[in-house]
Amino acid sequence: MASKTPVGFIGLGNMGTPMAKNLLRNGYPVIATDVFPESRKELQDLGAQVFDTPAEVAEKADRILTMLPSSPNVIEVYTGANGILKKVKKGTLLIDSSTIDPAVSREMAVAAEKTGAVFMDAPVSGGVGAASLAKLTFMVGGVKEEYQAAQELLTCMGANVVYCGPVGTGQAAKICNNMLLAIGMIGTAETMNLGIRLGLDPKLLAQILNMSSGRCWSSDSYNPVPGVMEGVPSGNNYQGGFGTTLMAKDLGLAQSTATNTKTPVPLGSLAHQIYRVMCARGYANKDFSSVFQFLREEEGHLPSVESRALPRGSMCM
Amino acid sequence: MASKTPVGFIGLGNMGTPMAKNLLRNGYPVIATDVFPESRKELQDLGAQVFDTPAEVAEKADRILTMLPSSPNVIEVYTGANGILKKVKKGTLLIDSSTIDPAVSREMAVAAEKTGAVFMDAPVSGGVGAASLAKLTFMVGGVKEEYQAAQELLTCMGANVVYCGPVGTGQAAKICNNMLLAIGMIGTAETMNLGIRLGLDPKLLAQILNMSSGRCWSSDSYNPVPGVMEGVPSGNNYQGGFGTTLMAKDLGLAQSTATNTKTPVPLGSLAHQIYRVMCARGYANKDFSSVFQFLREEEGHLPSVESRALPRGSMCM
Amino acid sequence: MASKTPVGFIGLGNMGTPMAKNLLRNGYPVIATDVFPESRKELQDLGAQVFDTPAEVAEKADRILTMLPSSPNVIEVYTGANGILKKVKKGTLLIDSSTIDPAVSREMAVAAEKTGAVFMDAPVSGGVGAASLAKLTFMVGGVKEEYQAAQELLTCMGANVVYCGPVGTGQAAKICNNMLLAIGMIGTAETMNLGIRLGLDPKLLAQILNMSSGRCWSSDSYNPVPGVMEGVPSGNNYQGGFGTTLMAKDLGLAQSTATNTKTPVPLGSLAHQIYRVMCARGYANKDFSSVFQFLREEEGHLPSVESRALPRGSMCM
Amino acid sequence: MASKTPVGFIGLGNMGTPMAKNLLRNGYPVIATDVFPESRKELQDLGAQVFDTPAEVAEKADRILTMLPSSPNVIEVYTGANGILKKVKKGTLLIDSSTIDPAVSREMAVAAEKTGAVFMDAPVSGGVGAASLAKLTFMVGGVKEEYQAAQELLTCMGANVVYCGPVGTGQAAKICNNMLLAIGMIGTAETMNLGIRLGLDPKLLAQILNMSSGRCWSSDSYNPVPGVMEGVPSGNNYQGGFGTTLMAKDLGLAQSTATNTKTPVPLGSLAHQIYRVMCARGYANKDFSSVFQFLREEEGHLPSVESRALPRGSMCM
Repeated sequence: MASKTPVGFIGLGNMGTPMAKNLLRNGYPVIATDVFPESRKELQDLGAQVFDTPAEVAEKADRILTMLPSSPNVIEVYTGANGILKKVKKGTLLIDSSTIDPAVSREMAVAAEKTGAVFMDAPVSGGVGAASLAKLTFMVGGVKEEYQAAQELLTCMGANVVYCGPVGTGQAAKICNNMLLAIGMIGTAETMNLGIRLGLDPKLLAQILNMSSGRCWSSDSYNPVPGVMEGVPSGNNYQGGFGTTLMAKDLGLAQSTATNTKTPVPLGSLAHQIYRVMCARGYANKDFSSVFQFLREEEGHLPSVESRALPRGSMCM
Repeated sequence: MASKTPVGFIGLGNMGTPMAKNLLRNGYPVIATDVFPESRKELQDLGAQVFDTPAEVAEKADRILTMLPSSPNVIEVYTGANGILKKVKKGTLLIDSSTIDPAVSREMAVAAEKTGAVFMDAPVSGGVGAASLAKLTFMVGGVKEEYQAAQELLTCMGANVVYCGPVGTGQAAKICNNMLLAIGMIGTAETMNLGIRLGLDPKLLAQILNMSSGRCWSSDSYNPVPGVMEGVPSGNNYQGGFGTTLMAKDLGLAQSTATNTKTPVPLGSLAHQIYRVMCARGYANKDFSSVFQFLREEEGHLPSVESRALPRGSMCM
Repeated sequence: MASKTPVGFIGLGNMGTPMAKNLLRNGYPVIATDVFPESRKELQDLGAQVFDTPAEVAEKADRILTMLPSSPNVIEVYTGANGILKKVKKGTLLIDSSTIDPAVSREMAVAAEKTGAVFMDAPVSGGVGAASLAKLTFMVGGVKEEYQAAQELLTCMGANVVYCGPVGTGQAAKICNNMLLAIGMIGTAETMNLGIRLGLDPKLLAQILNMSSGRCWSSDSYNPVPGVMEGVPSGNNYQGGFGTTLMAKDLGLAQSTATNTKTPVPLGSLAHQIYRVMCARGYANKDFSSVFQFLREEEGHLPSVESRALPRGSMCM
Repeated sequence: MASKTPVGFIGLGNMGTPMAKNLLRNGYPVIATDVFPESRKELQDLGAQVFDTPAEVAEKADRILTMLPSSPNVIEVYTGANGILKKVKKGTLLIDSSTIDPAVSREMAVAAEKTGAVFMDAPVSGGVGAASLAKLTFMVGGVKEEYQAAQELLTCMGANVVYCGPVGTGQAAKICNNMLLAIGMIGTAETMNLGIRLGLDPKLLAQILNMSSGRCWSSDSYNPVPGVMEGVPSGNNYQGGFGTTLMAKDLGLAQSTATNTKTPVPLGSLAHQIYRVMCARGYANKDFSSVFQFLREEEGHLPSVESRALPRGSMCM
C-alpha cells in the first residue's frame, strides 16, 4: 500500500471531500487544496497533505482530480495564474469530475496537451450519500489509452465507471441524462396533478403509470407527490435531494450545448425555463421534484373563486 | 323616442349593467333579468322593467341582448328550463355579447333557428370604462341580413361595430385577438426583464422597441414594467385592468378551438399554461401584465445566493 | 359453456374485432353491430349474431361492450336515434372501451342511469397484437359493485384489469399515461439527438440513460433512434406502432381535461403542439417515435450551410 | 472635404459594403479589408484603399468600423494574430456593428482598453435596402464621452442612432428587439392560422387585430399570410427578407444571455426552438415569416383523413 503514488485533489466541497476520503481509505496519499481553509483543514486532519494553490498540487502529483462547481472555476483552476497548468509535469493525468460545458472540457484538454499533460472529463451521477459510500457513477471522456489509468482511481470512489468516448463525451452523457431527467420529472408532476384533479388516487395512478408506457425514473423511483413513496424528498417537504438551482444550472448547460450545435430541444428548453422561474419564485433550494408543488393550486386560490369572479370582472380586452 | 320597441337584456354584471344603461339613455325601453336580485333592482330603479327569468323576457321583447360569463351560462339562459328559447317569438333577434366557444355560439344559432329566431354572436373588446362611455368594440357574427338591425342597437353601446362573417366568427375574432395579446404581453415582459438584466434602462428599452420591429400593443400602450408608462396597471401594483384569471379563461377558449380544429398554436398554448400557473401561484386577480412581476427574481433569491450554494449542493443527479 | 348469456359488442374496427373474437373463443354468444357491413359480415362468419343498429343489440343483450374511435361516435351509439339507450333493458351493464373525454363518460353514465342501466368506462392499453392475444390492459371506472361483473368479461380480452375508481377514472388513467408517454418520447428523442450531436454513440447513450435517472419507457423499451433497438418502429422507418395522429388525439383529450379542470400542464401542452405540427408536416401516419426524425437536420440543410450564409444575409431586423 | 481623416472598415459583406460606400459618399477616405478578395476589389474600385489584414487597417486609421457575421469572427478580427489590437494606435475609436453576444462586446472593450483604444458596440436594425439608403438604425453601447465621435460616422450610414448605455447595451437592445419580434411573428402566424380555420377572412382578421390590443409589427407591417399585405415576403413565397437561419442565430444569442443572467424567457426560448426546427425542416433560407407556412396543414394531410384513420388505427398505447 505504501508504494502507491500520491493523488492530487482540488475542490473539497460536499462532493469532493467524501471522494477524497475514499482515496485515502484506499491507501492513496492525497495532496489537496480548496479555496476554503476549513475544507483543507478537514482533509489535513485525515492525513492529506494540503497546499494553498492548484499549481503547488501540480508540482507534487502526477494524477490529479478536480471537483468544482462550474465552468469558470474549472477554467481558473486549470489555466489561472496559480492554476494546475502553470506547474504541471509532463505525462500528468488530469481528471475533472465537475459538471461543465463539454466545450470547456475540450478547451482544457487542448491547453493540457500543450504542456504534455492529459485531460479527461469524468462527471458523476449520484449524491453526497453515494459519494460517501463510493457508489458514484462516473461518465468518462478522453483518449482511450488513458482510460485504464483513470478507471483505477475512479473505482475507489464509484460503483460504475463508463467510458463514453473522446474528451467532452462524459459531460455530454451527464448533461443528456439530466435533461431527460428534468423532462421526466416535470412531466410526472403534471401528469400526477392532472390525474388527481380528475379523481384518481395518487398511489393508484403511480402504480398504473409504472406498469405502463408512462413509466419513468421520476414516477417509479422518485415520485414527486407527497405520500406516494417513502424515502424521497416529496415525503420530506422537498428538503435534501437535488436542488432546483442545480437542475437549472445543468439545464443551462444543456441549452448552451444545444444552441451551439443548433439542436432543437423544445421540451428540454421549456424544462429549463420552468426551473428558472421556480428559482425566481422561492424554490431555489428545494429538491427539483418540488415542481409538483409549484404547479398545484395554492390554498385560497381555488377554481371556484375564479369562476365566481368572472361575471364581475372589471374589463374585457 | 316613445315609439322605440323594447329591448331585452339578460346578464347585469359589471359589463352588462352599463351596457343596459346606455340602451335606456338612447331611449329604448329595457326589459331585463339577472340571477342576482340586487342587479335587477339597480336597473329597475333606472326605469327598466325586470322579470325573474329569461323566458319571461323573451315573451316581451323581440330583440334581446345577453352578456354572460361563460359557455354553461349561455347554454342555460338560452336552452334551460326557463330559457329564452322556451318562449321566444318568431323573428326575434338574439345577440349574445358573452365571450364563449364559437362552437357553442353555432349550437345556439341552430337551436334558435328551430324556433324561428335569429342568433348572432357579438363579443366585446374594452372594459367597464368603455362600457360606461359607450366606447366598446363589438365583433359580430351572424347572417348578413340581420347585421343592420344588430348594428342599430350595438352602436348605442359601442364606438366600433365590425361584421366578421357567419355565426361564431365574432367569437373567433375576439379569441384570436386575445391570444395574440397574451403572447405579446408575456413576450414584452420577458424582453423587458432580459433587457434590464443586461443593463438597459427600462424606459429607453421601451422606446427602442416601440420604434422598431419589436413594437406591440403591450410594449407601446400597456407596458408591464412599473415606471415605464403612466395610467396603466403596472403603475398601480397591477390592480384593476384585465385579470389574469380572465385571460386564462380566454386562452382556454383559444386552446379548445385550436384543439378542435387541429390547429397548432405553440406560443398560444404556452401562454395559456403560464397564465394558468400564475392563477395557481396567487396572481388570479392581478392584471395580466403582472406576468412581468411573476418572471422577476424575488427578493432574497438573488442569483448570487444561488451561485454560492452551488459548490455545497448536497447531491448530483 | 352453452349456458353463458350473450354479450353485445358494438364497434368492430381493428381493435374491436379481435376483442369480440376473444369473447367468442371464451364461449360467449356475441351479438354485434358496426357501421361497416363488411365488419359485421366478418364476425357473423365466426358465429356472432349481427344487427343493423345499437338499439337492436340493446334489445338482445344485457351486457354490452363498445369500442369506438372518439367522443362523438360514443354519444351517437349511446344516445342517438338508434342508440343503445333507446332500447336498453333495466340492469344492463354497459362497458365502453373507447378512449374519450372522461366528461363524456360521466354524461353517458348519467344518461344510462336514467334508463336503469349501468355504464362503466374501460379504455385499453396495448395494440392490435395485444388485442388478438388477449393481452390488453383495461383501466376501469364505475361503481365498485359492478366491477366484478365487468372484470369477468374483460379478463377474456386482457391480461390486466385495473379498477381505477368512479366513472371517468378509467379514461383519466389512460389519458394521464399517454400524456406522460408523449412527454417521455419527445424528451428521449431530443436527448438522443443532442447526445449524438455531441459525439456520443447512440447505443452507448441509451445504455447510460437506462441505468441512470433519465431512464423511461421510451428510452428502454421503444427507443426512437434507428439502430438502437430491434423490433420497434424506429427500426422499420417508423411504420406500424402508434400513429402520430392518434397520439395527437389523446393529447387533445389531455389538454381539454386540463383546461376544464384549470390544471397547468406545460410540457403536456407543448407535446400536444409538437405532435400537431408533425401531423401538419406529413408525419400523421408514422409511429409517434418519428419525432426523432422530425427534429433531426434534413440532408441539404446542414449547419455548415447556415453559417456560410450568415455573412451574406440580405437583411438584419 | 479633403481634410477628413480616414476611416477603417472591416467586413465587406452584404451589409458592410453598402455601409462603407456611404462613408465614401460622405467624403471619408476608407481603408478597408475583408477575407474575400473580390469584396476588397469592389471597394477598391470605388476609391477605397485596401489591405490584407485588420492589423494593417489599424496602423492606418484611428477610427475603425467592423461588420462581421458572428462572435468568433469578431474575436478573430480584434484579438487574432493579425487582428486590430496587434497594431492599434492609442486613442483609436473602434465601433463594432456586428450582432453578437454582449459578453463578447464587453471582452473586446476590455482588451481594447489595454491597448489604449476605445471599443463601442453599435449593431444595426434594417436590411440591405436600408444600408444602401443610409436608413439603418444603430443601437450604440459604450462610454458616453465617445458617443459623439461615433455618432458623426454612424449618421452617414443610418437614419437613427440611439445611445443605449455602457458597452454591450447596444447588443442587448438589438437582441431584445429581435426576441420580441420573433415572438410577435410566430404569435401572429398562429393567430392568423387559427382565425382562418375558424372561418375568418384573413384580411378582415388582420384589420381587427390591428385596431385592437393584438396589434404588433408583424400583424400590421409584415403580415405573414400571403395576400394580406403587399410588398412583404409573404406575398413573394417568403423570398428575401430576414432569413429563418438569421433569426435562429439571434434567438440563440438571446437564449445565451438569458441563461447567463438566469433570466426566464419561456416564449423567447420556445420561439428559438421553433425557428431551430424550421431550419432543420428546410426553411433555413426563407424569410422568418414563413413560420405561417410551417404551421399550416400540408396538402394531402387534411384533418378529414385523420378522423377516418382513427377507428382503424393499429395500436392503442
